Amino acid sequence: MNDLKIIIAGLGNVGSSLINTIEIDKVNIEKRIDRKINICGICAKNKNKKRSFSISDYKWFDDPINMIKNSKADLFIELMGYEKDISYESIKFCLENKINVITANKALLANYGNELISIAEKNKSNLLFEASVAGAIPIINVLKTLLVSNNIIKILGILNGTTNYILSKMQNDKIPFSEALSDAKNKGYVEANPDLDLKGIDSAHKLSILSSLTFKSRFSKLSNIYREGISDINIIDIDFADKFDLVIKLISTVEHNKNKLIQYVKPMMIDKNSQLGKVNGVLNGIQITSEKIGNIFLEGQGAGGYATASSIISDIYEICNKKYSPILGIDFDKLKLIENANIEDQFSSFYIRLNVLDKKGVLAEITSLFKDNNVSIETMIQNPDNFSRENDSIPLLIVTHETYLKNINNLINKIANLDNVLDKPFVIQIYKV
Amino acid sequence: MNDLKIIIAGLGNVGSSLINTIEIDKVNIEKRIDRKINICGICAKNKNKKRSFSISDYKWFDDPINMIKNSKADLFIELMGYEKDISYESIKFCLENKINVITANKALLANYGNELISIAEKNKSNLLFEASVAGAIPIINVLKTLLVSNNIIKILGILNGTTNYILSKMQNDKIPFSEALSDAKNKGYVEANPDLDLKGIDSAHKLSILSSLTFKSRFSKLSNIYREGISDINIIDIDFADKFDLVIKLISTVEHNKNKLIQYVKPMMIDKNSQLGKVNGVLNGIQITSEKIGNIFLEGQGAGGYATASSIISDIYEICNKKYSPILGIDFDKLKLIENANIEDQFSSFYIRLNVLDKKGVLAEITSLFKDNNVSIETMIQNPDNFSRENDSIPLLIVTHETYLKNINNLINKIANLDNVLDKPFVIQIYKV
Repeated sequence: MNDLKIIIAGLGNVGSSLINTIEIDKVNIEKRIDRKINICGICAKNKNKKRSFSISDYKWFDDPINMIKNSKADLFIELMGYEKDISYESIKFCLENKINVITANKALLANYGNELISIAEKNKSNLLFEASVAGAIPIINVLKTLLVSNNIIKILGILNGTTNYILSKMQNDKIPFSEALSDAKNKGYVEANPDLDLKGIDSAHKLSILSSLTFKSRFSKLSNIYREGISDINIIDIDFADKFDLVIKLISTVEHNKNKLIQYVKPMMIDKNSQLGKVNGVLNGIQITSEKIGNIFLEGQGAGGYATASSIISDIYEICNKKYSPILGIDFDKLKLIENANIEDQFSSFYIRLNVLDKKGVLAEITSLFKDNNVSIETMIQNPDNFSRENDSIPLLIVTHETYLKNINNLINKIANLDNVLDKPFVIQIYKV
Repeated sequence: MNDLKIIIAGLGNVGSSLINTIEIDKVNIEKRIDRKINICGICAKNKNKKRSFSISDYKWFDDPINMIKNSKADLFIELMGYEKDISYESIKFCLENKINVITANKALLANYGNELISIAEKNKSNLLFEASVAGAIPIINVLKTLLVSNNIIKILGILNGTTNYILSKMQNDKIPFSEALSDAKNKGYVEANPDLDLKGIDSAHKLSILSSLTFKSRFSKLSNIYREGISDINIIDIDFADKFDLVIKLISTVEHNKNKLIQYVKPMMIDKNSQLGKVNGVLNGIQITSEKIGNIFLEGQGAGGYATASSIISDIYEICNKKYSPILGIDFDKLKLIENANIEDQFSSFYIRLNVLDKKGVLAEITSLFKDNNVSIETMIQNPDNFSRENDSIPLLIVTHETYLKNINNLINKIANLDNVLDKPFVIQIYKV
């Protein structure tokens, strides 16, 4: 067997789990990939941090570029996770020098994928990223396989375990967002920058990767992917959804229609008995819809050291067992950027929560605005379960018949200006999975 | 691009859908596999049958062996589906002559896999079978990928769409087995030989393939895989399960423990809110449990022309894009047969339905037998919902505390001999998914 010379940069939970897995399962992995694994360099910010393996068993480098230059490696595994900086520089350097790269870095790919993939293909270097989306679920591999002969038309996913944990916790324990967030923080589920999870940025990074792979598009500017976070969700909303057999999930979705991508990340109410509605806690779930074979659904651990290491090793297997092929399956230089559609064209039911003063005439004022904006009301509940009142205000919960999101947005702008409506109106799309 | 010369034997629903898919999507598929597809021979039993493509576009052969000998093909796709006979002979002939083979034939693999895989590896011929298990779900590919670094300990699957359709239909429409079966027959879901579906034989074929691949074992004799079918299931059982948030599914499972395989196909009651419990209608679902990354769950269409064609094309992609590797990931000649454990050692709760005479003392007689056989009763319901009585007999439904299956079997043998118990007692294991 030939040697496979690997260098690893970034030795946090994922990097350490990767080394543990290789140490424990070396014989089996080597048999499967038909190469001898030789980790010929490791590198991280802090040499003295306590780790789950003995760093003295490996050659240490303080600087990844220095490690790459001095180790003649076949494969560089990037687990430092910077959105640019040294992650970008070291990957670029490898690709230009025909060293294969595996990375779990979704932020980097979503932001600099166009440039890096192009460099990789020019140099016939591999750039693999199974670990960047949905942890242990082999979604990249499954998509590449399905795409050979299937016209995939839609992907719907729960791609962020942290927000799914918080929403599940609010639902199960009937606690407000702030408490569920504290609990998630205590468990170590929240990133150093919580906005990445809570505002759907992490989900958008992952969605961007899935979109490009599936719909043969260059990566769109992240600012062009519509995003809403979960921090405005109230326990009232979750209770209300529950009564109608719905559940609130942070959904990432992309659909190809009329040569545009309908692509967004936002909390939506979905059928709580659907497979996606059943994805609870830190798990991730993805539903792939294809024209001829209907839905394929996958669920599994979306994060964690071993889950991510599993996907990295499946990429090592790819590199050793597969012929070189274009990174996204099709020559990147031939790909165009598919524009995003205006998501205001979405046609759906919507849930609206208003906080209104409990006065005569308020209801008439609001319902006439609905009428003026061509939004028809299906259900309206005032002050459900007699929620405790503040300042004479009460919650008013409304479900609309199907309409365009642009009608809802127009309506909400007008409602927000009413003197009798306190706080910002809160809207959630009700999505038929 | 080089030509990929393909010959196809068997032009039923799957074969025709395969040719349709290739015709429609040729440019895309060729780009992905980097070969030009040349279907240089087709063959089936009946030349004159009406088909969804024009057979005059292809070179026709009446005999597959003749086709193989006269077409210099790179790849033989076997879709005739005989358990042995010409399916076996043509595949063997190809493998011996270094012609790659793709087949959807689970019965053949389960019965003759040991011999055929050994021949394939001796000649470095490929033998791929993604299409043989779970239709469109790329389960073979996913397992091969996960197995590179994960210790898979258990697989639990709904692998037969027909029986799952029948059980879902009984559940949803509250109709007896016979009616649901007629409905499935009318829809064309039942094989010519219904026993293959109803007695779990088809599921056992598929389970056998998953077991060998996952646990690195030679194929065990099919008669050594414990099987129970679904035809004794009564609507009473389904109703009862429903009350306890359980649902009856035909489950195929294999688990590796103490160097034995615990492997069987039987109807079981499982949590109706679990992912597997939610797999309804003709869909298939599979849960893979691994030591370090927990559960991965997959669901999709388990049968149908396009679903199966999708898996065949993913095997074509494998052949064109991957280096040759052992058929089950590990050299077959080094594999041993892992013996099946005695499934009587299963420790679980059980549901028991008895049909008893409605006389004094019957209950005492039965409950004392439970005590004598160390089976403790958790719940007992006599004549639920006042089912209509026949001959003064009533149904008696019992759920036991956890115990060994051998205790249940001993108990049932004794109960069956009681004069006051009519019919054969009916038992279903309650499985914690």
